[in-house]
Amino acid sequence: MVITISRETGSGGHTIGKLLAEKLGYAFYDKEIVASAAGEMGIDEKLILENGENMSDQDYIDMKSGFIPHCRKPEVPYEEIREAQDRVIRSIADKGNCIIVGRGADFILRGRSDVINVFIHADMEHRVRRVQRHEGVTGQEERIRRELERKDRSRTMYYRYFTEEEWGRAENYTIALDTGVFTKTQCAELIIRALELRAKTKSV
Amino acid sequence: MVITISRETGSGGHTIGKLLAEKLGYAFYDKEIVASAAGEMGIDEKLILENGENMSDQDYIDMKSGFIPHCRKPEVPYEEIREAQDRVIRSIADKGNCIIVGRGADFILRGRSDVINVFIHADMEHRVRRVQRHEGVTGQEERIRRELERKDRSRTMYYRYFTEEEWGRAENYTIALDTGVFTKTQCAELIIRALELRAKTKSV
Repeated sequence: MVITISRETGSGGHTIGKLLAEKLGYAFYDKEIVASAAGEMGIDEKLILENGENMSDQDYIDMKSGFIPHCRKPEVPYEEIREAQDRVIRSIADKGNCIIVGRGADFILRGRSDVINVFIHADMEHRVRRVQRHEGVTGQEERIRRELERKDRSRTMYYRYFTEEEWGRAENYTIALDTGVFTKTQCAELIIRALELRAKTKSV
Repeated sequence: MVITISRETGSGGHTIGKLLAEKLGYAFYDKEIVASAAGEMGIDEKLILENGENMSDQDYIDMKSGFIPHCRKPEVPYEEIREAQDRVIRSIADKGNCIIVGRGADFILRGRSDVINVFIHADMEHRVRRVQRHEGVTGQEERIRRELERKDRSRTMYYRYFTEEEWGRAENYTIALDTGVFTKTQCAELIIRALELRAKTKSV
């Protein structure tokens, strides 16, 4: 089975992915590991790292309109990076049991019956507190909030461009959980139970 | 605890609510029972039934613009119905353990720590099949699909008008589940486990 994890920035989705990998003995792929897998396949790691799930508003508008000013023309078009990343994600999924965090893996692997798509989210207050702990700072709520919103926004634009759908809609995920309510360990437990139930239904 | 269930039309959310009520011994409130509770509080049941979670595109536009043609003026404004329904839902929630299906209860009760908000969805194919079984018909996929889309749309417009948010976004729910993947019994099991974990976290 493959578990994809999409997450709001700062919601703890990455940590939940790691927890799941440990508990299930699954391979774990996050941004860095996907990039490194790309490297092994002869694809530029840096491109995957930088343009593998983010898109600025301006890039979105330019690409949708088809008019990309020469000065802003990217060295490698998003589409090519996307296609390379698709190949990497599919080859990872084909290797069997694994967790893939981010990278639009839910969409890339859509339609496969061996995939569970998870969405992890939390309200802004929780996410700001989590970043404060992570960075070891107090205060600075306003800066952190703006940064979280900017990152979510760039994921939204990327998702919108490539899927023509809205990021974060419940209907695109097998299970969605709120880390403002559940601890990360509890989320892992619920996802593992969901996985077991899914396996049961599949074999019926 | 209060469990609110929001659901795409035809996804089985109503049945899951009933299952949960049975298994947990909670009171169960759907459209009819909310309307009847409203009746007991001296509020017109019919209004709640008809305008308690639906809004046509035209009504949305008229109300947003503030211009409601005299010929279309509703006998009782949406806002009044909404306010009455709010009171009914709050009084139901205050009575303790219960399941409330639909009616925007997730939004009405937002911020309460004794509430779990559930969203139930499934892809169109599954929902069409469910309606076919329910109606005891074969074929007619196109008619059923259009009807499901129309109902979801009217819930979306209602939600948008009163919450200024998009209906069906994962971030508004504690847990969201796909009945195209899980059976209704499995959904009930996952929600009960989520409820137990929630209770544990709350008491910590």
